[in-house]
Amino acid sequence: MKIYDDKIQFFRDTLDKHLEKIYQTGPDSLKFPINHILSGKGKRFRPILTLIIADINHIPIDDAICPSLAIEILHNFTLVHDDIMDKDAIRHGIETVHEKWDVNTAILSGDAMLAISLKLLMKNKSMNKLKLVQIFVDGLLSVCEGQAIDIEFEKKSIVSLDEYKEMVFLKTAYMIGLSAQMGGILSNLSEKEILELKEFGDCIGMAYQVQDDLLELFSDSKSMKKSLESDFRLNKKTFLWVSTPETLRSELDSILSNYNDDKDGTINKLRNFMEVNRIKQKAEFFIGQNIENSKRLLDRMSCNTQFLGYFSDLIFNREY
Amino acid sequence: MKIYDDKIQFFRDTLDKHLEKIYQTGPDSLKFPINHILSGKGKRFRPILTLIIADINHIPIDDAICPSLAIEILHNFTLVHDDIMDKDAIRHGIETVHEKWDVNTAILSGDAMLAISLKLLMKNKSMNKLKLVQIFVDGLLSVCEGQAIDIEFEKKSIVSLDEYKEMVFLKTAYMIGLSAQMGGILSNLSEKEILELKEFGDCIGMAYQVQDDLLELFSDSKSMKKSLESDFRLNKKTFLWVSTPETLRSELDSILSNYNDDKDGTINKLRNFMEVNRIKQKAEFFIGQNIENSKRLLDRMSCNTQFLGYFSDLIFNREY
Repeated sequence: MKIYDDKIQFFRDTLDKHLEKIYQTGPDSLKFPINHILSGKGKRFRPILTLIIADINHIPIDDAICPSLAIEILHNFTLVHDDIMDKDAIRHGIETVHEKWDVNTAILSGDAMLAISLKLLMKNKSMNKLKLVQIFVDGLLSVCEGQAIDIEFEKKSIVSLDEYKEMVFLKTAYMIGLSAQMGGILSNLSEKEILELKEFGDCIGMAYQVQDDLLELFSDSKSMKKSLESDFRLNKKTFLWVSTPETLRSELDSILSNYNDDKDGTINKLRNFMEVNRIKQKAEFFIGQNIENSKRLLDRMSCNTQFLGYFSDLIFNREY
Repeated sequence: MKIYDDKIQFFRDTLDKHLEKIYQTGPDSLKFPINHILSGKGKRFRPILTLIIADINHIPIDDAICPSLAIEILHNFTLVHDDIMDKDAIRHGIETVHEKWDVNTAILSGDAMLAISLKLLMKNKSMNKLKLVQIFVDGLLSVCEGQAIDIEFEKKSIVSLDEYKEMVFLKTAYMIGLSAQMGGILSNLSEKEILELKEFGDCIGMAYQVQDDLLELFSDSKSMKKSLESDFRLNKKTFLWVSTPETLRSELDSILSNYNDDKDGTINKLRNFMEVNRIKQKAEFFIGQNIENSKRLLDRMSCNTQFLGYFSDLIFNREY
């Protein structure tokens, strides 16, 4: 819908404009990498979610922009540190900080981004500033724990679907739930409404990550292929991996073992394997279930949630 | 004085007891390194400063312990990340996290410690919780910027005394000022009194760092010698280095160049160089001036500051 598309574009432009000049003072060895990474073409999914909820509730963008920026920078802080850990060289189409500079610069820039993020969070006019900080800090610990579990999985030969879901909840869904929850807090909604928004965010967060796992294998986008390669290299446990029955694991391993010799061939074989064994369908079913749950939550809410539903559809129609 | 010594010991024991069980849940890959590093024998200088100020103002320890723990954990977070950057293998007499585990574990444990620290900060009964968070977050950015400048200095051949002081203020003094300031806020003191406490902390923080630079060369403690070695390896700019007149720089470089062949001989020559050229005395004068300023600030305060003065004397009589 044009009115929603225009608003989303306006939110994205406003966020990008602020991010461009978010850290102008301070030492060059922080300023340059921070500005570099924030200039990458991120989707700004999380802060747009917050801004849409504020918009629905007639909160002017000026009253919601700082916490929204805070959440985007918190997200980027996790990316800068995760990229060191995963040895990823490209992010959002540009070189990662540790690749363009070095590991030390990336560690410290990440730390400083977290500080900048918290400073922005404190710069809001909400009556519930403390509540915002509280959930933000909980989100920070959650994302660290999720990343720790994800790394622990790399060395495990058995990871169950439930363990995977717990990891994704901590690492990805929690922060998306938080973005929605923050929108509710900024809109001075009731506890019940804020909780519903959080649950809505958790649901689309779970679906979003599994969709990511799926797109990595089935999309032809360059950035998705890069992520796929990184997953293979690190022995990451994706939804597709954990959903492969144990009886088929050796077949999966044997396909994967040829990846370095024949990348495209392996990808085709993997796609086929996931389809024939109905593992792709399992992922699609999981995504569908979570989207359905999120819609049910929207239907229950008293505010006009059409815009939220539209945005959620946009996300799940993405191709990379 | 026995009564103060006993109280300090009690504060230290209480802090250590809490630190031992600060993070019991969560993934092993965070829990083990975090508990490991917090079990090191740190001086707990910063949180004890906060607790003393609360004590002077008759605030029960239970009402001040969480923010004090927060500041100690924030400090330890900076150490975990700094030790990666400086490639230091030992801290507080035990192996550093990146040495005992790996760099990834150290990055993520540091991040999680920051989250834990912020969660503890939110767990206090102060009326001024927001103010506490605000200055804490400012302190976090300050310490990142100070560390960034310190690393930038490694590659510089000229660093002025003023630039050095700015770096030390951001990296070390600010956090010690913050510890004192937090004590004032927790005691519900007036803005003016809180600011005086912060200035007091800033002064002892500046003196503390320069004393550290001095002890590294002149103390015979093993841990100080380790730090000295790390400074040489990284071309760190210490107070002694920036205070060496340019005309003597080539003589200093020539002494330093022999360090790897004859460590003890080089240290003796350096000690002699710093004494003969009255650079050691400059450092002692700088420390003395800052201690004097801090005492003047104490004299001005309306509360009974004897305990604070006693603690400050203890710090400056340390031998490592």
